[in-house]
Amino acid sequence: MKLKIAVHATDGSARRGTVTTSRGTLPTPLFMPVGTKGAVKHLDSSDLEALDIPLILGNTYHLMLKPGAETIAALGGLHGFMDWNGHVLTDSGGFQIFSLEPKVTDEGATFRSTYDGSTHHLSPEGAVAVQEQFGADIQMVLDVCPPLPSADHVVRAAVDRTSAWAGRARAAFLAGTAQRLDRGLDQAQFGIVQGGIDLGMRAESARRTVDLDFDGYAIGGLSVGETREQMLPALAAALEHLPADQPRYLMGVGDPASIVEAVGLGVDLFDCVLPSRHARHGTVLTSAGRLSIKNKAYERDDGPLDASCTCPVCARWSRAYLRHLRRLDEPTGARLLTIHNVVWLSNLVVGLRAAITEGRFDQARREVLEVWA
Amino acid sequence: MKLKIAVHATDGSARRGTVTTSRGTLPTPLFMPVGTKGAVKHLDSSDLEALDIPLILGNTYHLMLKPGAETIAALGGLHGFMDWNGHVLTDSGGFQIFSLEPKVTDEGATFRSTYDGSTHHLSPEGAVAVQEQFGADIQMVLDVCPPLPSADHVVRAAVDRTSAWAGRARAAFLAGTAQRLDRGLDQAQFGIVQGGIDLGMRAESARRTVDLDFDGYAIGGLSVGETREQMLPALAAALEHLPADQPRYLMGVGDPASIVEAVGLGVDLFDCVLPSRHARHGTVLTSAGRLSIKNKAYERDDGPLDASCTCPVCARWSRAYLRHLRRLDEPTGARLLTIHNVVWLSNLVVGLRAAITEGRFDQARREVLEVWA
Repeated sequence: MKLKIAVHATDGSARRGTVTTSRGTLPTPLFMPVGTKGAVKHLDSSDLEALDIPLILGNTYHLMLKPGAETIAALGGLHGFMDWNGHVLTDSGGFQIFSLEPKVTDEGATFRSTYDGSTHHLSPEGAVAVQEQFGADIQMVLDVCPPLPSADHVVRAAVDRTSAWAGRARAAFLAGTAQRLDRGLDQAQFGIVQGGIDLGMRAESARRTVDLDFDGYAIGGLSVGETREQMLPALAAALEHLPADQPRYLMGVGDPASIVEAVGLGVDLFDCVLPSRHARHGTVLTSAGRLSIKNKAYERDDGPLDASCTCPVCARWSRAYLRHLRRLDEPTGARLLTIHNVVWLSNLVVGLRAAITEGRFDQARREVLEVWA
Repeated sequence: MKLKIAVHATDGSARRGTVTTSRGTLPTPLFMPVGTKGAVKHLDSSDLEALDIPLILGNTYHLMLKPGAETIAALGGLHGFMDWNGHVLTDSGGFQIFSLEPKVTDEGATFRSTYDGSTHHLSPEGAVAVQEQFGADIQMVLDVCPPLPSADHVVRAAVDRTSAWAGRARAAFLAGTAQRLDRGLDQAQFGIVQGGIDLGMRAESARRTVDLDFDGYAIGGLSVGETREQMLPALAAALEHLPADQPRYLMGVGDPASIVEAVGLGVDLFDCVLPSRHARHGTVLTSAGRLSIKNKAYERDDGPLDASCTCPVCARWSRAYLRHLRRLDEPTGARLLTIHNVVWLSNLVVGLRAAITEGRFDQARREVLEVWA
């Protein structure tokens, strides 16, 4: 189904809204945690419910290999498999597959599994089929995502192939709609804008993607090696050509400074492994910036990770306890830091909603940048 | 304070009761999970509350090294450090230290830290002091725990040294009582019976321990290499000499068959790392016995781990999902299996309470042995 965004308030280009899907509604702007292999690391679906997380991302690359799309389909799709009634967005597998240096032709990509070395193939149509088996609420098209910096001809080729694949993916998706609806599966499909940091190619890629009339739009191929100063104009160049009444999703970007800048440009959705990855390394997101919980300074610090945080970890456990658990690699520590980081980053974005409504987005933006830029 | 058990029902030697401590009451028989380093692996104190766990064990050896007794004391003892209002029992460190082949004299044991190789010393009096700093509700005396089989003279020496150390530990503990009460800390101290599988030495060790008039009694040095057939008579020989109106704690024994036999002999308290360790290896406790969740047979099994289990994991997630998470070493999987195993083993013991009250303990015992013996 075509996803529309009801915009409730704007402040400059920043917007607060509600995206309606077949499953329900999503308040935006919104950060989605990443459940790479069918779980946000250390968390289960009851945790996500308790933490008010309405949307998570699942990784097609990992899930198609283990446990496999057939198995997930047999168990009720990702929602049944995880027993999760919230929203699921699945990526197309492209981002991971292209990091494996696959053999790519116009037809699709052939790659080796990092689990067992076995050979697999993914085409634009195959990515649609796999994400249908996953039963995701939102599918992403298979795109070509070059690292940055890349030569112009590499970015150009990525734009062209992404566009060609998007056309095939859209056709395959639309051809399956009636059959999906018959069995109660009403998915949305997002196109992806590429183009590196070349403003012209970003604009062109956006227009060509919009021409295919997707249910929503993502900007991919950013935060892959370029600076924030290079990223933001490229993001703006793409956003300019995306329809105002549909959701806009910036893929894989999760540092607070980039998130606030992207919200300022009109982005609605975000995903990133950053809060989970930071947690595993003992790095904590706080309103005063990052802190490394393993630091000796916290040995007897009985205060919370962040006094202004509303997460259940800050309500209950001290920096000293969390430092102790993390230093000894106790899994309880990684879990509690994950809960804090995920809630903290989600709440950063939730806080921007109020700032937009109250016409003080730029002040909120400056406060975030002061700490995080 | 001296711990008394109010016995509500007996069936043969099995007894159901309530132990009253300065913190509250503990229903018995009771299984306590092990929070080695200040957390039951993968769980936090809010989990323990949600799972109705009233008592956990903390390991003196680990906690005195990391983060150290001074640090824990500065943060409010283990209860403050973990933010845990349930009961804590701490072992004396003896069991771990003796596995490190320490230098032992009549005075105490000198050992190397497995964390950094540094040298440490623990005496009977020192173990009392450390557990006072931890603020445990129940302290254990420093004992000598030989592996089995051991030569008679080794077991004899362990009984004698354990007894001598128990006398010093009791004196040190009693000397500190007034000062502890002044600052609101009303601890109990348990003596430990040794004696290997020699019935005479078990009886002697029990009598010598009881002569020191402890607040409760533990049976140590079992499940350390002997068979269950060797263990049970030794346990019975010790229990015979322990006061009926005080709690009896069988240390480190957690396999279902041994637990049910020990309850049948009159044991009240149990601890073991078994449910957590099994969970990490993908081994699941069920009413039909152990199952290995990684088994291919569960690939598409949408049933719960154990259909008769009341834990939150069995209420929600399938064997197929848990198998997937465990196979990929996803920490969510180890957490969910830990929750199941801890609740399952706790509930096995809780179920024996009803059997005792209803006069069908022997039937319940036979049902457990049929699966687990």
